[in-house]
Amino acid sequence: MKLMRIGDAGAERPVVRVDESTYVDVADLGDQFFTAPDDFRSTVDARITAGQVASFAGERIGAPIPRPHQILCIGLNYRDHAAETGQAVPDEPILFTKSPNTLVGPHDDVRQPRGSTKLDWEVELGIVIGRRASYLDDHNAAREAIAGWVVTNDISERAFQTERGGQWSKGKSAETFNPAGPWLVTPDEIPDVNALGMWLDVNGVRRQTGSTSTMVFDPYEIVRYLSQFLVLEPGDLINTGTPPGVGMGFKPPIWLQPGDVMELGIDGLGSQRQTVVAAR
Amino acid sequence: MKLMRIGDAGAERPVVRVDESTYVDVADLGDQFFTAPDDFRSTVDARITAGQVASFAGERIGAPIPRPHQILCIGLNYRDHAAETGQAVPDEPILFTKSPNTLVGPHDDVRQPRGSTKLDWEVELGIVIGRRASYLDDHNAAREAIAGWVVTNDISERAFQTERGGQWSKGKSAETFNPAGPWLVTPDEIPDVNALGMWLDVNGVRRQTGSTSTMVFDPYEIVRYLSQFLVLEPGDLINTGTPPGVGMGFKPPIWLQPGDVMELGIDGLGSQRQTVVAAR
Repeated sequence: MKLMRIGDAGAERPVVRVDESTYVDVADLGDQFFTAPDDFRSTVDARITAGQVASFAGERIGAPIPRPHQILCIGLNYRDHAAETGQAVPDEPILFTKSPNTLVGPHDDVRQPRGSTKLDWEVELGIVIGRRASYLDDHNAAREAIAGWVVTNDISERAFQTERGGQWSKGKSAETFNPAGPWLVTPDEIPDVNALGMWLDVNGVRRQTGSTSTMVFDPYEIVRYLSQFLVLEPGDLINTGTPPGVGMGFKPPIWLQPGDVMELGIDGLGSQRQTVVAAR
Repeated sequence: MKLMRIGDAGAERPVVRVDESTYVDVADLGDQFFTAPDDFRSTVDARITAGQVASFAGERIGAPIPRPHQILCIGLNYRDHAAETGQAVPDEPILFTKSPNTLVGPHDDVRQPRGSTKLDWEVELGIVIGRRASYLDDHNAAREAIAGWVVTNDISERAFQTERGGQWSKGKSAETFNPAGPWLVTPDEIPDVNALGMWLDVNGVRRQTGSTSTMVFDPYEIVRYLSQFLVLEPGDLINTGTPPGVGMGFKPPIWLQPGDVMELGIDGLGSQRQTVVAAR
């Protein structure tokens, strides 16, 4: 099942994608996707069987989830990316955060913040949490707490992140810094989340090529681990780190400029396209 | 004006405190405190004049704001606390975050997380944001973006924070880690926010004594500065750092244990009392 939200920014409505051209409207089901997922799926199936589908009409695609309670991010979580940045593979997941209001649609513009000189990209596998989760015992419990997977672009301002005093969140939280989508894919559609190819192009040049198979901590371990330190809520988004090929990894580094176009995707999860626009 | 939320956890209703024993109910005003603060104040004044007040009846006091969009924190923001920890005074505000679901009432229990060995306290001045704020030009603009002040206790697990791999949020986000209240005090009631005495006792022994006058970056500068990196939303909470006397500053350090009682307060903003309880 592929959950989407379509419509103007701030006025999106949830739908379930049937195929490239049609969808099932689920706006009347409230948050049943999280609170009663089996019922939600039954209702969607019944609507498809009954022919209650509509056609996409060029609507904007928003992020597939509303603004989450929190956006958590794991740093240096790909062995090959850690090597690229000259840093050691971490012993435990590195946690940092993004402001929840960074979330935007998969094809929305990414706005360069004022004073930004080192704007960078990061294709990532996003985890969407399905139920309140605290002190999960094992990977099976973590699996049950996951509502689905989503492509995210963990936009970063490297000078803000590392040259403006402690802690990374400062370079991760500007407006538009978290494109997500085009859809949330439920776990049943992804046979092995630990073997997904991923890629990112800038202006048509391939910059990131990777696979979730080189993650240091896989999604189930990340969810289990984080639940030992904080309480995860339904709809929370976890960005799980990025493979090699980010702008700061090049010599000399490559930074995004207004007009640049990012295209990125993950096997089975769809693709995104963003244009960088100038600071307000 | 002192805004409170009273009632059982998750079912609090907003009131305006008139005095020690009475309040005005404002549950019917929705979020007018943020969206139309002048109207909100007029309505409250009219109700007081009309005698539409009720008496407190021993209700639980919740945090004075609902769960915020984000909780931002400033690290090492007191000159005397930086000295205590042996760290340099930062050149720019250090930003880290707490999970929004850490917010609890001022007298609620603080739960020690599983595996915690270094549980610590931090009395802090909290800023509540009143309006969406981005790229504020100066301290006057920051002043206009502030809805009020609140006492907070930035509970920290120092081993999680500093010994479990990068970034501080990991030791700041456990359930119950952000008592706030008893009330939000509007800025008109505080003549000089940069000259407020603050204190914290553990089991009746004074541990923290300080003043907002030793802040490195004052509240107006913090709000102006943060708005350059991210978008602040109405109801967002900013914890502005702590004065000397935290548990990790003692030699040997003093860590909280189940049964310990913290009492803390700030001049003009009221006081809190929490008991530490064991991990679930």
